Amino acid sequence: MNIAIVRYLIARLMQIEGLLMVVPLVVSFIYGESWQYIFSFLSVLLFLLIVGQIMSWKMPKNRRVTAKEGFVIVSLSWILFSFFGALPFVINGDIPSMIDAFFETSSGFTTTGSSILVDVEALAHSSLFWRSFTHLVGGMGILVFALAILPQLDSQSVNIMKAEVPGPTFGKLVSKLSSTARILYIIYLVMTAIVVILLWMSGMDLFDSFLHAFGVAGTGGFGVKNGSVAPYQNPTAEWIISIGMLLFGVNFNLYYMILIKQVRQVFKSEELRWYLIIVASAVGLICLNLFQSYDSMSTMIRDVFFSVSSIITTSGFSTADFGAWPLFSQSILLLLMFFGACAGSTAGGLKISRVVLYGKIILSELKKVAQPNRIVSVHYDGKALNKNIKHSVANYFVVYIAIFTLLVLLINLDAPDFLSGFSAVTATFNNIGPGLGAVGPTYSFAELSDFSKVLLSFVMLAGRLEIFPMIILFTPRTWRK
Amino acid sequence: MNIAIVRYLIARLMQIEGLLMVVPLVVSFIYGESWQYIFSFLSVLLFLLIVGQIMSWKMPKNRRVTAKEGFVIVSLSWILFSFFGALPFVINGDIPSMIDAFFETSSGFTTTGSSILVDVEALAHSSLFWRSFTHLVGGMGILVFALAILPQLDSQSVNIMKAEVPGPTFGKLVSKLSSTARILYIIYLVMTAIVVILLWMSGMDLFDSFLHAFGVAGTGGFGVKNGSVAPYQNPTAEWIISIGMLLFGVNFNLYYMILIKQVRQVFKSEELRWYLIIVASAVGLICLNLFQSYDSMSTMIRDVFFSVSSIITTSGFSTADFGAWPLFSQSILLLLMFFGACAGSTAGGLKISRVVLYGKIILSELKKVAQPNRIVSVHYDGKALNKNIKHSVANYFVVYIAIFTLLVLLINLDAPDFLSGFSAVTATFNNIGPGLGAVGPTYSFAELSDFSKVLLSFVMLAGRLEIFPMIILFTPRTWRK
Repeated sequence: MNIAIVRYLIARLMQIEGLLMVVPLVVSFIYGESWQYIFSFLSVLLFLLIVGQIMSWKMPKNRRVTAKEGFVIVSLSWILFSFFGALPFVINGDIPSMIDAFFETSSGFTTTGSSILVDVEALAHSSLFWRSFTHLVGGMGILVFALAILPQLDSQSVNIMKAEVPGPTFGKLVSKLSSTARILYIIYLVMTAIVVILLWMSGMDLFDSFLHAFGVAGTGGFGVKNGSVAPYQNPTAEWIISIGMLLFGVNFNLYYMILIKQVRQVFKSEELRWYLIIVASAVGLICLNLFQSYDSMSTMIRDVFFSVSSIITTSGFSTADFGAWPLFSQSILLLLMFFGACAGSTAGGLKISRVVLYGKIILSELKKVAQPNRIVSVHYDGKALNKNIKHSVANYFVVYIAIFTLLVLLINLDAPDFLSGFSAVTATFNNIGPGLGAVGPTYSFAELSDFSKVLLSFVMLAGRLEIFPMIILFTPRTWRK
Repeated sequence: MNIAIVRYLIARLMQIEGLLMVVPLVVSFIYGESWQYIFSFLSVLLFLLIVGQIMSWKMPKNRRVTAKEGFVIVSLSWILFSFFGALPFVINGDIPSMIDAFFETSSGFTTTGSSILVDVEALAHSSLFWRSFTHLVGGMGILVFALAILPQLDSQSVNIMKAEVPGPTFGKLVSKLSSTARILYIIYLVMTAIVVILLWMSGMDLFDSFLHAFGVAGTGGFGVKNGSVAPYQNPTAEWIISIGMLLFGVNFNLYYMILIKQVRQVFKSEELRWYLIIVASAVGLICLNLFQSYDSMSTMIRDVFFSVSSIITTSGFSTADFGAWPLFSQSILLLLMFFGACAGSTAGGLKISRVVLYGKIILSELKKVAQPNRIVSVHYDGKALNKNIKHSVANYFVVYIAIFTLLVLLINLDAPDFLSGFSAVTATFNNIGPGLGAVGPTYSFAELSDFSKVLLSFVMLAGRLEIFPMIILFTPRTWRK
């Protein structure tokens, strides 16, 4: 293990987090908040800059970043971002408990959107802003951001990108990784800006428009009001948010393809096709199931589309209380929670590309079982799928379900009931936000024990980073000389 | 598809079922039951013998049984056994509804033990006997039984055995398959006889001893009293049953190894070792969790051991009401429901051998992710595992979870609540017996809709036959010329 490069990069990343805190600091000034808010951001900002500078004083000679170092850097930096990002809340008193603040900040960076806050509206503007801003930063990835602004890392960073960008495979857009990162971030920020403007035009307050746009971009789900999006009573904003979430659930590489006018590539994408088919089918099935309980057809379609889009993209915004929908509709939403949206997007869950491959693996198993001597190959995006990818995708499923099961077992050591424990893990592991039962959309995670809160904070991080980086970080073998 | 051989074998199997009905007929005579009981078994018996004789008048020339025909024969015969096995209940009026009787009989043959009966004790002796006798027949397998008594099928039956015997691989004990089948059945029947005798010696009524022994042997779980084993208040019988279930959850090949004095092979079995470790760990963890709620240490251990043994072997007998245990203990039992016992035993679920391989696949994935260029192989039973088996075991998991999810979605079209729907599928797909909530140990499946009952009947059959045979039977492609 190349400890020197790990320390150096972590230190640089801490400085970046410090710089990011300039934004809520400015918000604090704009709204003329009291000194403890200014102090809370300024002190952490200065601490991160100074300590980061000391720790990264000299660039290590050996800059080799293998897969193992990639995983360690990524998992460690996400934990530290959540830890230091939580400090301002504790210092200014908006979230007095460090455990609560750590939960809230990792929920933010991982774009989960689960909250321990009972009254969101009690927070200061700067706190609310920083809380939602973590969605924007975490959505595209902390290290992708670092890479975009620190191009000198380029030659060594493929293993870092691999560890952070979700999905079964990772593709460079252009030969230089730092350029890939920059292109992705520019597309991401421009799209976010468009959402801000559209929401503002729909009649939403500018501050609220910014915060909701961050939640949409990161498919996070932190809101500004206690009832999420519902209290605005603004159908136009609801449509903007639901279509926005859906678009941020698409693999960003496809937007790059549009930019360089290779629109054909976009239509060829099997993942995108299935993503849209699944969304349309889910909306259709739920509408059929709800038909009799709505008076207005258009309200029903808006509510259902919003919920489906919010759940499949693992955002977690809500308008209708789907906890009161029939069991079949709820089961479909529960299933979508595990699906997640496209690889290379800001969403959590298994990702549609894996789900599609699972479907194909099942079909090929059936063929093989019926005719054992036949050779069956799996095609994806028009090409025969590499066997290694096929096997590692199937094995990932085993890992995913095993870890999920273990986490449910652990949370049930002190969960109030099975549904709450099961859905708390489902909602955090897949980076959704609210669960069901005691952690449902109309409640919060506030009532859970400290043990559960710490556990779920790490569950969110493990879910966002697709499990392996966190396990490798906590494996003693990793740290053996 | 070789329709002629399918028809011939199915006809022969129907005759075997007819002959099996001689046993409850004798019971009916012994207890001097009224004419409708005698008529119910006699009429179906004669019908099966005659129709079977007509349909199998001449042996087909082409006796080739490929994998596809194997699956079709196995799945079709299990459905027909359940259908014709249900008729006596409908004719004698003990279970008037055909759908209920079909559910009860497939639950019997698949050794699930889920029941639609609200008052078991109201049944006649012959009906009770036939109901539990299906556990004995289904446990070791309908076709394994046929093979044991029809050796002329030998050369073509490997694909039939493969389709019926549960577990990831299938091994012959001796070169002739019919001899393998006969050896397995003799061990099975001798062990069952020992359980009958022991239960009788413990003070249980002889009739009840027989029926409980059938339930233990098939790891089925149908009881004689409404409160399962609890009303007997017989600790010795409880120990006999719990140890019995555990022993019938062991791969029967190992008993053959003991018979031919290759005891070393038994100790080498990784599956057996893990089976015992998992049972011991589960008992230990639950005892720790329950420590404060029991006055008597020995009662606690007896109750916990009974429950763990009943669940992991997917039997479903009960003494303590584990629905009232803490959530952590219940979660462990829920997990064991999916594990099941050893391959080549009478238990359902995933089977321990697969679970162990999943653990090894996870470890090898972790190693591969940390060091992508390293070659990682998986060892099992001291040998490097064949790659095809490893991949098909991983793919089976994908198939298993996907079908499970689809079934939960379907049952939730009219399940009373999520826990009931989810646990109804868990309990039937893994051939356990009682679920939780509305289908919990103190309730029955009686209140479900006809749609749910028919669905769950097929779920039990799909679970017992490990999914593929049922899917292949219902695939139109199978029947295309």
